[in-house]
Amino acid sequence: MRVSISGGVHGNELLGIYLVKDLLRHRPSIDLDLDLFLANPKAIEACRRYIDYDLNRSFGPIAAKEDRYEFERAKKIKNHLAKSDFLIDLHTTTANMGISVILSSQDALSQNVAKILAAEFEEVRIVRWFGTEEGEFINSCVPSSITLECGPVCQGLLDARLYFQAKKVLLRALEILQKGQRADFELECYDIVEYVDFPRRDGELFGMIHPHLLGRDFSYLRQGDPIFVTFDHKEITSQKEGYAVFINEAAYYEKKIAFCLTKKDRI
Amino acid sequence: MRVSISGGVHGNELLGIYLVKDLLRHRPSIDLDLDLFLANPKAIEACRRYIDYDLNRSFGPIAAKEDRYEFERAKKIKNHLAKSDFLIDLHTTTANMGISVILSSQDALSQNVAKILAAEFEEVRIVRWFGTEEGEFINSCVPSSITLECGPVCQGLLDARLYFQAKKVLLRALEILQKGQRADFELECYDIVEYVDFPRRDGELFGMIHPHLLGRDFSYLRQGDPIFVTFDHKEITSQKEGYAVFINEAAYYEKKIAFCLTKKDRI
Repeated sequence: MRVSISGGVHGNELLGIYLVKDLLRHRPSIDLDLDLFLANPKAIEACRRYIDYDLNRSFGPIAAKEDRYEFERAKKIKNHLAKSDFLIDLHTTTANMGISVILSSQDALSQNVAKILAAEFEEVRIVRWFGTEEGEFINSCVPSSITLECGPVCQGLLDARLYFQAKKVLLRALEILQKGQRADFELECYDIVEYVDFPRRDGELFGMIHPHLLGRDFSYLRQGDPIFVTFDHKEITSQKEGYAVFINEAAYYEKKIAFCLTKKDRI
Repeated sequence: MRVSISGGVHGNELLGIYLVKDLLRHRPSIDLDLDLFLANPKAIEACRRYIDYDLNRSFGPIAAKEDRYEFERAKKIKNHLAKSDFLIDLHTTTANMGISVILSSQDALSQNVAKILAAEFEEVRIVRWFGTEEGEFINSCVPSSITLECGPVCQGLLDARLYFQAKKVLLRALEILQKGQRADFELECYDIVEYVDFPRRDGELFGMIHPHLLGRDFSYLRQGDPIFVTFDHKEITSQKEGYAVFINEAAYYEKKIAFCLTKKDRI
């Protein structure tokens, strides 16, 4: 079984970059055809999310027509992943999401790995996210995959505790794949159903995440709960209900996402 | 008295950028010739620290000879600040430094403002930093100044609590200047005396800030205290003593600074 692990799809998310480099130096002794790679070398060098366009929204057929560095990379990565059975894509978030396993396909193998990890590790939750209008994820290149979304951590720096936590989860994922372990149980998951933008006037922010909401990823948001506070100190309350995730993710300001709302389901 | 307030010297430090924009919309009713400006428009637009070179190391005579966007900006800002008596420069840090007032000149007015703020606000400490070999700070353009260094907060996002805390300190600084208040007391300060780099091999990181040190800005570091942990889980201990600041500041990875050591003094 060929298993690929990608770090640095976003060049300023250091955890995955250094974890891939570490595993290249000290290859795990595991009976898998292990393929480790850094996805966006120029963005890693510049310590930026991307050079021209978000690489993790660049894998669709339409996007690939334009002339941008990340579309070139996406084509190469697509070829590179053609023989892979499974992909583990490493990311970080500034939101307080622990080690979230993001599922973006519905196949049994991906679900299996996600469920075993979520059952074994307290800090692991399953989030299902089947894509965005912005463009397709790297996961679309392979039949099966999980994304490890680790946080909270700032862009451009390393947090040792989170690093070792993520490494433990990653190594366990490889073991599950090697042993072909099955999850014969149901588990809860969070399905992303809606994006909520910051308050804006003429495109410009006029408020921030309310301190009451900040850091409360996966807690239930009710109608009337404060979600934003304006620069002149007025509260804005929620019109919607749901479990909020990706609260105050730095990279999503430009995507006009202050947080995502999810619904709980079971897999 | 002409008082300038600059935000966005670093384009991904959103607190100062939005605070300046807020004060431009709602000018404080204070009897000062108040001048508010955004220092690095292109970097703000790109949400990056800088385009070509760190603007806050671009104010020296040597640097100004080269052809880079930030050197152009530095020249314009130098002219712009020629008539200013006082500058308050707004920054953020990923380190747990509260609202640090950085003094980079020795004049009485700057010390005065810093001391009153540090005496009144629990979260305010004074750090003296008289420059770096990399290039001169924006503070070198004016006779008197303070820098507000607010953290911890990630680059590229806003934290409402820190924002309003910083705003309160900033407005108090303006009041001190307007009233010409004097600080007839001594106070402790932290003088930056040394930079400590991450463990590296051939320039490449092989360790991170130790969890024991992370977030412990302004606490005393003794010889033998763990400061780094390598990717393969070995502890590295300190050879030096002192109060550590700027611990794990994202922007200083490329400057080869994992943290700064300070000595306590009194002003």
